Amino acid sequence: MSDVRARAQRARLASGLLGRASLERRNEALRRAAAGLREARPALLAANAEDLTRARALLDAGELDASAYQRLKLDAPKVEEMARGLEALASLPDPLGRVDLHRLLDEGLVLERLTVPLGVLAVIFESRPDAAVQIGALAIKSGNAALLKGGAEATGSVGVLVGLLRAALAASGLPEDTLQLLHGRAEVDTVLGLDQDVDLVIPRGSSSLVRSIQARTRIPVLGHAEGICHLYLDAAADPAMAVALVRDGKLQYPSACNAVETVLVHRDRAADLLPALVADLRPRGVELRGCPRCLALDPSLAAATDADWDTEYGAPVLALKVVDDLDGALAHIRRHGSGHTEGIVTGDPEAAARFLAEVDAAGVYHNASTRFADGYRYGFGAEVGISTSRIHARGPVGLEGLVTVKYLLRGHGQCVADYTGPQARSFRHEDL
Amino acid sequence: MSDVRARAQRARLASGLLGRASLERRNEALRRAAAGLREARPALLAANAEDLTRARALLDAGELDASAYQRLKLDAPKVEEMARGLEALASLPDPLGRVDLHRLLDEGLVLERLTVPLGVLAVIFESRPDAAVQIGALAIKSGNAALLKGGAEATGSVGVLVGLLRAALAASGLPEDTLQLLHGRAEVDTVLGLDQDVDLVIPRGSSSLVRSIQARTRIPVLGHAEGICHLYLDAAADPAMAVALVRDGKLQYPSACNAVETVLVHRDRAADLLPALVADLRPRGVELRGCPRCLALDPSLAAATDADWDTEYGAPVLALKVVDDLDGALAHIRRHGSGHTEGIVTGDPEAAARFLAEVDAAGVYHNASTRFADGYRYGFGAEVGISTSRIHARGPVGLEGLVTVKYLLRGHGQCVADYTGPQARSFRHEDL
Repeated sequence: MSDVRARAQRARLASGLLGRASLERRNEALRRAAAGLREARPALLAANAEDLTRARALLDAGELDASAYQRLKLDAPKVEEMARGLEALASLPDPLGRVDLHRLLDEGLVLERLTVPLGVLAVIFESRPDAAVQIGALAIKSGNAALLKGGAEATGSVGVLVGLLRAALAASGLPEDTLQLLHGRAEVDTVLGLDQDVDLVIPRGSSSLVRSIQARTRIPVLGHAEGICHLYLDAAADPAMAVALVRDGKLQYPSACNAVETVLVHRDRAADLLPALVADLRPRGVELRGCPRCLALDPSLAAATDADWDTEYGAPVLALKVVDDLDGALAHIRRHGSGHTEGIVTGDPEAAARFLAEVDAAGVYHNASTRFADGYRYGFGAEVGISTSRIHARGPVGLEGLVTVKYLLRGHGQCVADYTGPQARSFRHEDL
Repeated sequence: MSDVRARAQRARLASGLLGRASLERRNEALRRAAAGLREARPALLAANAEDLTRARALLDAGELDASAYQRLKLDAPKVEEMARGLEALASLPDPLGRVDLHRLLDEGLVLERLTVPLGVLAVIFESRPDAAVQIGALAIKSGNAALLKGGAEATGSVGVLVGLLRAALAASGLPEDTLQLLHGRAEVDTVLGLDQDVDLVIPRGSSSLVRSIQARTRIPVLGHAEGICHLYLDAAADPAMAVALVRDGKLQYPSACNAVETVLVHRDRAADLLPALVADLRPRGVELRGCPRCLALDPSLAAATDADWDTEYGAPVLALKVVDDLDGALAHIRRHGSGHTEGIVTGDPEAAARFLAEVDAAGVYHNASTRFADGYRYGFGAEVGISTSRIHARGPVGLEGLVTVKYLLRGHGQCVADYTGPQARSFRHEDL
């Protein structure tokens, strides 16, 4: 306990140094890490092969699922992709020191608000070893320290990757304590209790990981437990567009958080859109589950249960429901949506305007695939995660989710007493 | 429990309606409330007199402190001040619907990010009944609903005030459910557990109130438990300025969170600055507590104990400590500061620059009183509170602390599949 806390406190000191280091130096560390990664590729792939051997045994014993095993695997193209990701991050503008308020409070009394690092992050991720590089690099760029805990099955790969990042920091004259590995669940539990020493927890993994972390800490958690996204096919939906957007939302990457789980269909369009959806999706292997009104139209559908409306399938399964109208769609989304991304397909501008205004979610879309909800697609250059919280950051979060602000006030001896009482001076409040 | 939750859910619906209401209508409600307050002054003062009678008995029985009794008291000027506050808020720009990102992702695919209400606030305040009006009005302006719980001793006054605000909402065609009173501790405890239904908790009161709330909820809390602010008198401090800034920081309003609690003095200046401080502050009734090096210079000082460095006096008491140099001051502040507001007095630009860069606090000041840390003095027009958290909002928080963002994406059927693979379209990412 006290050891982990001491490490978190060293991380804070490291963040202070890193946050005051020049952009050039932070970028140098990222570029050195990219070069180091390419050089160390054989050692990295060897460590990864050992992880895979151990994971294979777990897989065979039924203690690891096949997708986690797949995500664990690194190869030469993935290493190159990681190296390029580091270089791309180095070319992004500095998230630190941005002045977003510069105000003359009174003659010679100048207020400035600028971005500074949050401080200390705790990052808990599952089997993908590249998450260590991605989030470690985001931390370096934004002047934050990070305590990193990867999945047990990726220990060897993550150890090599974090070692490379630390070596790049040291070679650039920056503190190695910026990135520290946590070992074992007990250390994670300790960190989750350090609400004075850790500023933000970033879980990267399944919704059950996120929920379990949210339940165990008072530290703010950036992310989302669930992405239950809806696409509402309105009375005025173009049929070809409706089918294409459902197909993209469901099948382009079914395990993504921004994939569509439930399609709501206006009752006046059920008779033409349901058959079109079935004809398009069933041959592509999508399992379709319908509400009673859907089943009345197409008895070949499986019957959806109440649980379906609250399930993130993460798989080629789609729930279908007929609603009376836009209000019915809004009510369903209010009750079952997770505040992630919701879409309407319609040619009716009024229906679109109401949907965009009334749906309360991080992203609300008109005639576009929910799969666009992503930091890269939004043009942020880097993605910390997607937040369904309303506090601090909402939606896809770029580097600006890893900074806070600090107010600087420069004067020449001004006292508040001079601005109070009958002879009070007035503030000027002029933006500079 | 279920009743309180149902009320929180009605509050969310109310926030939805309020957040989509025009600025004119929200401002109309604020102006009607101001008028209603002036009209209802006799009834309000009568209710307040009854509260005061009950509070007097508690005061006499030693169950209420004198300052809480004082804060409870309303009179005609205070009512006028509240009414003017409502009108001033009505004249502020709209915090909602501000577009801070407008980007062409690709031809015909336009992303927009705009401010929307957080949703549901829980506001817990102590004896000042005017807090109900202030925070209720901020909620109306920003499209948020608020569950309000005042101190038990202010029940009558707060009931009248919230009734006036609700009547003004209804008369303006806005939902009364926007503002709802909570009764009793059990309802507060229930609300603090509703992390799915309440977005932000705002405690207004003592640091023990804030700490107790932080300890009991996973909902984000906006505020600060403590304001332990330091003023460091550097080797190059102007002596008259140093004394004036200490006097203002300590005495202009000693119970404020931005008042100075500890003065750090560079060792080379202890011999001249300590006597000057003692000569200025002691006749003004300030109790001075010094470190051993201070006592060696002036044995008439009381001896500070370790606890003094971590105490927010909220009273005319000041701790004095001699430090070796700027590094010593930075180390003391790192260990004992609460991240609120810290100041340096110096004529040395390098020392000032280091202090401003290295101190990690919401406000860092050079040659200015820490008492300037305030939303009105910063020109925000309204203050929600002062946050020492790094997440969501830091420092004095204006209306922008009560909003979040929502991304709207408008297309004409674009799919993500078109932007992946070998034939992928490229994003344009042009800001509009």
